[in-house]
Amino acid sequence: EMAAARPVLARAVLQQCLSARLQVRPPENGSEPEWVEIQRGLVIYICFFKGADQDLVPKIVNTLLNVKLSENESGEYVSLLDLPGNVLIIPQATLGGKLKGRKMQYHANIEKEKGLELYSQFVTLCEKELAANAKCMEAGVLVKYGTYGNRQVLKLDTNGPYTHLVEL
Amino acid sequence: EMAAARPVLARAVLQQCLSARLQVRPPENGSEPEWVEIQRGLVIYICFFKGADQDLVPKIVNTLLNVKLSENESGEYVSLLDLPGNVLIIPQATLGGKLKGRKMQYHANIEKEKGLELYSQFVTLCEKELAANAKCMEAGVLVKYGTYGNRQVLKLDTNGPYTHLVEL
Repeated sequence: EMAAARPVLARAVLQQCLSARLQVRPPENGSEPEWVEIQRGLVIYICFFKGADQDLVPKIVNTLLNVKLSENESGEYVSLLDLPGNVLIIPQATLGGKLKGRKMQYHANIEKEKGLELYSQFVTLCEKELAANAKCMEAGVLVKYGTYGNRQVLKLDTNGPYTHLVEL
Repeated sequence: EMAAARPVLARAVLQQCLSARLQVRPPENGSEPEWVEIQRGLVIYICFFKGADQDLVPKIVNTLLNVKLSENESGEYVSLLDLPGNVLIIPQATLGGKLKGRKMQYHANIEKEKGLELYSQFVTLCEKELAANAKCMEAGVLVKYGTYGNRQVLKLDTNGPYTHLVEL
């Protein structure tokens, strides 16, 4: 594959799941951790690079919700919106790493505050798109998401993750 | 990030795990499916592109086993060999997909037979490198791997996957 010689602004890794469970608040002072959970659908690991701005958000949301990667009951591949499936969004800054010797460097990652802003917009737009979709509303599918900046403690159950990389 | 304007020959996605369980033989004629399982360590999803050959295998194995991405008991990031941790290798041709409209195309993926050959060499070399490492031998860490061409039914338990992309 010939990689394009232009800056990548966002990187997503997609995995299909039967269910997924993500910690959104760690245990503190003896309190129980808080988790979110989805059933069948798509896990989206997302990372933004320097140069990304809010114009990118609709493009990437539209791409990820409409690309035909989810296997329906007939074994056909349809979009998440057409499945319809649930969505679990995981902020994953490590995806921005670039190998340098034996270490990963994250110099191209977006600044933390700007990253949080884009991440929040990304989550909100995913929620809006699912809420605007009749099939999704009827099926009652959900968008769940991790807490930006936290350790993303994840438990994943798949019938084949069919891992895909999408860069914009 | 500025992507390099040269062909990518192999793409790996790395996730840290507490445990992972992968189906290596589906249920058939009423027989139970067969699974492999690892405890703490690294899940490697691997895909080869056209143009990859056996010279690439030592490079990518060396890179993946030595990059410092695994958190030890002190919270430091060390290599898989230094952790030492177990390895679960998952062949993942979907990683070679390139977005075209609403579909993924896999034109750059290596031919299936050549891909199987490189995958087998990749597994064998991972096994050799762990077996040649005193820490790994002492700790009794394992290399497990999926069946090339199968559906990779996976269950993953993490304390944070810290998902990384490595391309060579």
